Amino acid sequence: MESVHKIISARWVVPVNESRDILENHSVVIKEDKIVEILKTEEALTKYQPDEKIALPGHALIPGFVNSHGHAAMTLFRGMADDLELMTWLNDHIWPAEGKWVSPEFVADGTRFAIGEMIRSGTTCFSDNYFYGEEVAQEILKSGIRGQICSTVIDFPTPGAETPDEGIQNAMDLWEKYKDNDYVMPIFGPHAPYTVSDEPFKKIIKLAKENNILIQMHVHETQTEVDGSIEQYGKRPIKRLHDLGLLGPHMQCVHMTALNEEDIEIIAETGSHVMHCPESNLKLASGFCPVHKLQEKGINVTLGTDGAASNNDLDMLGEMRTAAQLAKAVAQNAEALPAYEALALATINGAKSMAKEDKFGSLEAGKFADVVAVDLSDLESQPIFDPVSHIVYATTRNQVTDVWVGGKQLLANRELTTLPISELIATAIEWKEKIVKGREQTAEK
Amino acid sequence: MESVHKIISARWVVPVNESRDILENHSVVIKEDKIVEILKTEEALTKYQPDEKIALPGHALIPGFVNSHGHAAMTLFRGMADDLELMTWLNDHIWPAEGKWVSPEFVADGTRFAIGEMIRSGTTCFSDNYFYGEEVAQEILKSGIRGQICSTVIDFPTPGAETPDEGIQNAMDLWEKYKDNDYVMPIFGPHAPYTVSDEPFKKIIKLAKENNILIQMHVHETQTEVDGSIEQYGKRPIKRLHDLGLLGPHMQCVHMTALNEEDIEIIAETGSHVMHCPESNLKLASGFCPVHKLQEKGINVTLGTDGAASNNDLDMLGEMRTAAQLAKAVAQNAEALPAYEALALATINGAKSMAKEDKFGSLEAGKFADVVAVDLSDLESQPIFDPVSHIVYATTRNQVTDVWVGGKQLLANRELTTLPISELIATAIEWKEKIVKGREQTAEK
Repeated sequence: MESVHKIISARWVVPVNESRDILENHSVVIKEDKIVEILKTEEALTKYQPDEKIALPGHALIPGFVNSHGHAAMTLFRGMADDLELMTWLNDHIWPAEGKWVSPEFVADGTRFAIGEMIRSGTTCFSDNYFYGEEVAQEILKSGIRGQICSTVIDFPTPGAETPDEGIQNAMDLWEKYKDNDYVMPIFGPHAPYTVSDEPFKKIIKLAKENNILIQMHVHETQTEVDGSIEQYGKRPIKRLHDLGLLGPHMQCVHMTALNEEDIEIIAETGSHVMHCPESNLKLASGFCPVHKLQEKGINVTLGTDGAASNNDLDMLGEMRTAAQLAKAVAQNAEALPAYEALALATINGAKSMAKEDKFGSLEAGKFADVVAVDLSDLESQPIFDPVSHIVYATTRNQVTDVWVGGKQLLANRELTTLPISELIATAIEWKEKIVKGREQTAEK
Repeated sequence: MESVHKIISARWVVPVNESRDILENHSVVIKEDKIVEILKTEEALTKYQPDEKIALPGHALIPGFVNSHGHAAMTLFRGMADDLELMTWLNDHIWPAEGKWVSPEFVADGTRFAIGEMIRSGTTCFSDNYFYGEEVAQEILKSGIRGQICSTVIDFPTPGAETPDEGIQNAMDLWEKYKDNDYVMPIFGPHAPYTVSDEPFKKIIKLAKENNILIQMHVHETQTEVDGSIEQYGKRPIKRLHDLGLLGPHMQCVHMTALNEEDIEIIAETGSHVMHCPESNLKLASGFCPVHKLQEKGINVTLGTDGAASNNDLDMLGEMRTAAQLAKAVAQNAEALPAYEALALATINGAKSMAKEDKFGSLEAGKFADVVAVDLSDLESQPIFDPVSHIVYATTRNQVTDVWVGGKQLLANRELTTLPISELIATAIEWKEKIVKGREQTAEK
């Protein structure tokens, strides 16, 4: 018998592999940080000698979620301003609050808090567009989750960068430091076509190509953005980005509503990726991303929650359900984005967009053991004709019981193992009290 | 000090009254089955002497959800067939399965199972369109929940009724038996314009008006239905129902997609109600109900989960979040259906459609004590700028900890008090095994 570290045996294993298998009574065998083999439980227990045996007879194992777009620290602004149009929400609420409060300490506290919520809902890798990337990196490393850090580049001064050049330098510094790290994955995060002018874009794409660095950007978030680009640049945002040479397999385009056939053609031809954030798009009335049309053209579509200030949670199970339901209505076709494909959006497709599909995103031998256990034994999950249907259409975040990243257990029977939950909650409440007091003082003036 | 039965003291009370209050550190005082008063906790504890004091320092109290459209027993078909167009789903999967399996025993078992899920997610009153109403009534009475039973009337033979006249007689028998009951509320449930011809409609409206009985029907579920009506009757379904005299404040129209201005005008003028089922409409690609437009015309819009065979859960918290998010995108206005209004859809508006707004649907003195406690103390609910924002946009069903209907506690710290959960689960699994075996036998033939 071969010595291994862990055998996790479950009622179902949903590997999200190419053949979209659903395996019954199988085990995931883990050695160091990687999956050694996935095989029938009765065979696993005779072939391998593990240090730790975990039996989950009412659970399904799935790959950890890859939350491919968000703003982690903004979780501290959850529910601060709702039911407002995107530009009102940004101009009157979010940007003033960020101007007043965002600091390295805010980012560290907010990111740590967000990571707690993400681990508890089955996310094992997230993408973050925000400020003070080194603070984000430290929180990622302390918690044990994986994170793609998109360093913000924007025409106007931001926390941590007075100019676009400083933003670019921040991104390069972070990339130099972590380029070989499997947990911290730094990339460029130019904010959006309407907030970044041509010169910074040209510098970014030059550096990105020279060093093989990825880029994530908000693109086509609203029709207003598209109209503004036509007015300012004489072309639609996607055409402008394409003409600047920004599109390609290194490019992660977030949101992507208000698309015409030519836009879709350009994205498909260049092999750019699309980060779909359905709940944020709905709540901000941004528009509909035509997921089905994009998939028909072979475009890789991933899933993101966006920030909890607009969503208002970091729950990939809920986001996946919304994506699967909404895609059908938008396509006017109930066969669009079936359950297993929605699960692929939330896992392997995210890994592909990060050029990491050989390392995580599915449960397969040789990949990192980024594994999530979903409890399907309670009343709300009965009866079970198809576990994948339930995971997508009828599961809530509290059913995530256990989470491993690179074989290390970060959630054990609903308890965080690397983060102190009561401190996370207390810190969030402290920030909220400061923010409310600050608002009251401003109102008094 | 006045003797009362219960004082429930909570961090927040969200009564969903006319003035849309959010009360901090208030208590709901209960005597027998009714709310006596809602007042500050410190005052409540000096004014009243309760048999039972319940302190919920991290919770919000809200009125119980009124799930205004569903098919409870179909929860046994949860996840049996997904990702299919409405008529394929009905013709190839649901109707054959119903033909084979639906019996009084199936309805009793399925309804009991569904009631368990509904109580656990904060529903205190549901509407049911299905068969064998007396079995449904018995399950309602045993569990302690409230239920509106819409007895099915349809042109073709169904379980329990060979003809439309038998369906009508079933409805009348149930109404005679329970017309004065506050828990069992029988009404007419003609299936849909495309499955009921003019003669049964005429009989129904005559009896409804003579006896003051309400009517619930699927109307304008899809564009196909509208097109079919124009072809068969030379008019749109709503115009046809109006010409037959069916519309009015007694009429509950379910789904209501594919509406034009004239349709909306007729609904508004007649005072008919609209049951919005957003997740079912999305998942079956049925279309979009223009909630914002309906509300602008003063139409009462309520919320329903539809059956768990199409949704795939009976979770009003999830449905409310989807409704609030989707309304904004459909209206192209992020201010559409703000959080507190979404909560009204899910509570008081449902009660209004049942002509019971003087009895339940909000937390107000004199009404039945149908109260739900939502735990907002955990990480996913922090920080709290506005508890109603969190209830609508960031809460999942497991945060419902306690439920009272008419002052009786049906859920206590997540445990069902009137239903045996392990038996509910075991029975659902038994039915699933029968159904799967039946399908295999059919396939072998």
